[in-house]
This record gives sequence, C-alpha cells and structure tokens, in this order.
Amino acid sequence: MKSRLCFLFMIVTVALSLNAQFTNSPVIGKDGSVSFSISAPGADTVRLIIDSRMDTLMQRQGDKWKLTLNNLEPDLYMYHFIVDGMKVLDNDNAHVLRDVKNVMNTFVLDPQADCPMAVHDVPHGEVRAVWYDSPTLGMKRRMMIYLPPGYELSRQKYPVFYLLHGSGGDETVWLEQGRTAQILDNLIATGNAEPMIVVMPNGNIDEQAAAGMTPDNNVQPTFAHKHWMDGTFEESFKDIMTWVENNYRIRAAKRYRAIAGLSMGGYHSLYISANQPEDFAYVGLFSPAISRMDQGKSKIYDDLEAKLLTQFKQRPKVYWMGIGEKDFLYKDNAEFRKLLDKNHLRYTYHESGAGHEWANWRDYLVIFTQLLFK
Amino acid sequence: MKSRLCFLFMIVTVALSLNAQFTNSPVIGKDGSVSFSISAPGADTVRLIIDSRMDTLMQRQGDKWKLTLNNLEPDLYMYHFIVDGMKVLDNDNAHVLRDVKNVMNTFVLDPQADCPMAVHDVPHGEVRAVWYDSPTLGMKRRMMIYLPPGYELSRQKYPVFYLLHGSGGDETVWLEQGRTAQILDNLIATGNAEPMIVVMPNGNIDEQAAAGMTPDNNVQPTFAHKHWMDGTFEESFKDIMTWVENNYRIRAAKRYRAIAGLSMGGYHSLYISANQPEDFAYVGLFSPAISRMDQGKSKIYDDLEAKLLTQFKQRPKVYWMGIGEKDFLYKDNAEFRKLLDKNHLRYTYHESGAGHEWANWRDYLVIFTQLLFK
Repeated sequence: MKSRLCFLFMIVTVALSLNAQFTNSPVIGKDGSVSFSISAPGADTVRLIIDSRMDTLMQRQGDKWKLTLNNLEPDLYMYHFIVDGMKVLDNDNAHVLRDVKNVMNTFVLDPQADCPMAVHDVPHGEVRAVWYDSPTLGMKRRMMIYLPPGYELSRQKYPVFYLLHGSGGDETVWLEQGRTAQILDNLIATGNAEPMIVVMPNGNIDEQAAAGMTPDNNVQPTFAHKHWMDGTFEESFKDIMTWVENNYRIRAAKRYRAIAGLSMGGYHSLYISANQPEDFAYVGLFSPAISRMDQGKSKIYDDLEAKLLTQFKQRPKVYWMGIGEKDFLYKDNAEFRKLLDKNHLRYTYHESGAGHEWANWRDYLVIFTQLLFK
Repeated sequence: MKSRLCFLFMIVTVALSLNAQFTNSPVIGKDGSVSFSISAPGADTVRLIIDSRMDTLMQRQGDKWKLTLNNLEPDLYMYHFIVDGMKVLDNDNAHVLRDVKNVMNTFVLDPQADCPMAVHDVPHGEVRAVWYDSPTLGMKRRMMIYLPPGYELSRQKYPVFYLLHGSGGDETVWLEQGRTAQILDNLIATGNAEPMIVVMPNGNIDEQAAAGMTPDNNVQPTFAHKHWMDGTFEESFKDIMTWVENNYRIRAAKRYRAIAGLSMGGYHSLYISANQPEDFAYVGLFSPAISRMDQGKSKIYDDLEAKLLTQFKQRPKVYWMGIGEKDFLYKDNAEFRKLLDKNHLRYTYHESGAGHEWANWRDYLVIFTQLLFK
C-alpha cells in the first residue's frame, strides 16, 4: 500500500509542479471571449502578440497580467507574450506551433462549433509521413499525405490535390498552421468537399525534409535556401506525381488532379500547371509570389504568356486566385490578372482582408477545396 | 524589378526579425561541447534546466548569459531557461517538445555520428496517424504506426511490436521524446533489428486522442484521467490487435508479436501479456508502474501469480525488465522480481543509472528492439 501511495504522491507532485496542470489557457468563454493571463510579478510591461493581428499591452492585476478579448473571428490563433522586452510563452498552454523559426502558443476559437479549422466529432482521415524517391533531385525526400476517411477499408480510387507551402515552410506546415486535416475532415463530413487525397511535399529542394528530420539534426528552419524559385522544384515535380500514382489508389486523369499553393507555393503552382497543361484541371494561387522577372532563370519560367494560352485552351475547370488587400504582393498579382484579362483567360478572383498570412490561406483552402472535382 | 526587390526585402526583413534566423542554438562543437546562450540584459539570475539531469546557474557575459557543457552523453536533450524565476525558451532554437504539459527546447547530441536517437542518412520508415475503431470502448481512437523502410513497395508480411506510453503520455510521445522512428530506422539499417511494424496506441481510455486532436480543441494534456489503470485499456486491447491485423501485412502469430511499455505502459504490458498468454512471445517492462494492490479492481488484475505461471509455461522468448537505480518504482520492481524468482520464471533484467525518465526509456527501446523476432 505504501508504495502505491508513494506512486500516487509522485504523480500528484509532478502534476502540481507543471504549472497548474488542470488550467486551460487561454480561457475561452461561451460568448467567444478569450482571456489571457500570465504571472510576472516583477515586470514593468507585458505585451500580448497575436499573429500579425494584434500587439497590445496587458493590464496588471496583482502578480498577474491579464487581458480579455471579444469579437475575434473563429479560427486558429498563434500568440506569445513580451515581458519587459523578452519573448515568453504561456506556460499554462501546451499547444504550440512554429512559424519558420518562431515558436508560439496556439488556440482554436470555435464558439458556434462550426469553424472548419477546429476538430469536430466527424470521421477523421489518415495522415502519413512518407519518403519518396526523386530521381531528378537524386534524393529521398519527405512529404505528408492526407487520406480521406474510409480510404483504408475501401477499394475506391480518389482524386488528388497537390498542396504546396511558401518560403519558410516545409512539408509539415499545411498540416500544422494550415489545419489541412481538420479542414478536409470537416468539409468531407458535411458533403461540401469530395473525398480526396491531399499531397503536401517539401518545396525547398536543397533539403530532404523539414529541419530536424534530416541528418543535420539540429539545423534550424530558415527562409534562406540556396536554390530558391530557380525552376528545379517545378522540374522535379513529376517525381512526386509518379510516386503518388504508384503508391495510392488515384484517379490518374486531369479532371481528378488539382494543384494549389501559398506564396512561393502559388508561384510553383502557376508554373507547374503552365508547363504541364495536360495535367491539372484545378489550379489555386493563394497570395502567389508572382514575378515576371524570372525569364532566363530556367526554361520553366520562359514564355509564360504562350504557355498560359496553351493551358487555358485546354480549359482548366477552375483557375482560382486569392489575395489579401494588404498583401505586399497585391500589385504583382494585379499585374498578373491584367495579363490574364488581356488574353481573355477565365479565372476566379477572391480578394480578402489582411495581408500575407495564414488567416487568409486557411480561408482560401476552405473555399478552393469546395470547388474541386465536382 | 521593383516589386521583385520589394519581395526579397520583405523576406529578408521577416527573416531578420525572427531572432537571428541563421543561428543554430545551442552551438554544438566537434568535440561534443554544447554552448548555451540567452540575451537577458536586465536579469539578476539565469538558470539552465536540462531534463532532470541538470539545473545550473549561467554566467553573465555583457547582455548575454552563457554556459558551455562538456562530456554529455550522445542522446536527445530537453532544456529551458529560468530568467529571474520565469520560464523562458531559447528563441534561437525552433526545436521544441512537450513533456505532458511542459514545452521545452530540444537538441540531439551525436558527436560520433553513431547515436541511435539521431537522424542518419539511412532509409526511413513511414509514420502514420490512423483512427481505429474500438467496439469495446465505443469510440474511434487515434494511434501512430511506424512501418519499416520498403513496406510500401514490398508484399512481405512483418512482425509487430506494440509500444505503450506512460501516464501523462499519449499516442505521440514514443515518436517525439521516444525517438522511435529514428531508433528503428537506425537499428534496421545496420541489421541490428529486424524490420518490424511498431504500433503506438493511446493508453488513456478517457480520450480518443492526444490533447488538441479531439473536439475539445484546447484541452490541455494531463496526468489526471478518470479511468486510470482500472483494467479497461487492457480489456479493449484486442480491438487494437484486430484493427492492425486487418489493415497491415502482419505475421499474425505469437512468435512475431511483441509488447512493451514504460511506466503505466509497462503495467499495461505486464497485464495484457499475462491475460493473453497465447499472444506475445516478447514482453518488455520499462520502469513498469508495478503494484500488486490491484486485485479486485478488475478481473484483469486478479490472480497475477497463477496467470504468470500459465504465461511462462508457454515460454515467452524474451521477458525483459529495465529500471533505473534511482527510480521511485525501484522497490516495487524488486518485489515483482522476487515473485518471478520464487516461481523460477526466467526473465532478463537490466539496471541502469538515473530514474524514471526518457533517457532510460530510449535506451531500453534500443536494447529491447534488438532482441525481437530473431
């Protein structure tokens, strides 16, 4: 009995020492209010930073600093504190994500239980971390695969959606900040999206995989890659398609293939689909890092206008562009739309608030995914 | 050209603002030294905490606080700083892991490039997050599966190893702190372990999945579960085996089945294997939370001695126990060994340094895995 009690005592002691084990933080009210709190008795100022949405002072209440926010939109949020100039995480919240190298706390706001970024009580798809062979790049590379609920037990073939990340991202980011698995689970459960396979490769062709998953174990995630939008990723893209089509039950035809990406991934999607006009019926450009200064860097980027004419002659079912009105790439995107307009090429254009950020890209994924394979 | 430059400028600006994007931290020397550094100009004291291995003061050097350590063993380490009593992470290190609710930075020390916990340039297995049906518990539940390199392309059947976590853990922890994928990749590549499938379920039967993966999106990970070592997990274990054997190419026979776990998972492994003597040829108890006060709580825990006699009459190929000499469960484990000795039941016993902690459990996984399916 003694040792049993001792064991329980240890567990309770450890639990108590781990910063209020049973506290949820932030505290989310039924009205959708979100209350933040941090203990910092000696601090002069404490700031709360939420994504690029907010940077505000907290109020001292005794040893604690507090702030309650109302009227936030349902979404996933990332935040941290700045205590007298030093970044500090919320130790009452174990949920963290990183944005490139910056680790932050996270919470999901879903007051009406209808946010497509939240986990709901619906069938869940399977997520796989796989290593594919890229003969073009001469390496094994990691990518993430989302399989729709029921894939394991069915014999059905599925359409496939290639979903590409931005500069500073890697194969994990669409699942982490992008909430791809939650969004797909929810849209498929309500019948708003077709069951599909989502393939999330790594677009940084200098690396085999995300930082920490390669033999340079402690390397840090970075924006700075040696090869960067130089055509190599686009040239090697068929290695990914071949591997996927060999390993999964795929409907391997243009009308069952989509490609989309954010920022650098939007740029990749633009040029991959323009260079492979026979392959993609659905193209999504999410705040794409469009620049038409790229000719001569690679044959991939040459003759874009002629390639687009060929691509649109074969009538993509959906050619979709989304961008935030404050995005620093807004003007470049407007130029690109002029090019499409001049040639009478039909596309869908979605303009949202905010800038070059995940709140937009998650929304774009929700919108674009519902257009696919119908 | 202007917008192209503007885009590059934005990228560089964002990169610089993200706390020294190109710095690796901690700095690991070729001699295996590890140098920590944190900027905290106004602080009075800064401490460095490494797992349960070290809690030490850092030295001020100008605005920074520094410390270099030598002679650490090759392994995965978790650490954080305490700045004037406040927990602060290393903002130059994007690699973090959590222990129950406590988020910490992490690094891999591998000066000879031979540490089995590090990523090496070897073929990598696939990792899957799957949802299985548990009719016994009346819910869909999440578990993680490691498939050995080549599984996808072969038609071979594989042995299966069920690997269980401890109290405070969940289905992800053997992959995260436990480094199961790295350890298996490395041991299989060198021929020291047989290719096998590793199944990592969630042993907390109150929950479907790890915190954050269930409809109570913001719930925090915890030690405190309503149902806790009450026999329910053990009773529902055949649901897991059935699902795995239906969905993977498994050699479904006793000599190709292993079960092991740490702490609560060791306790689960002990009772599952004792109650299913026909199922497991290999049993591993890693610092098991053994207590023999459990009779009457569930038929699972009754008549242990008689069940062990039956189990050992059928000669398990390996019955392995490991514990640290400072583990608070050491005495309980010694009592259990006496019970085995009294009945002349043959087991392998491994005593290591340190206590109830991951440094031991990763080592035990390395040792135990090499004994399997030979």
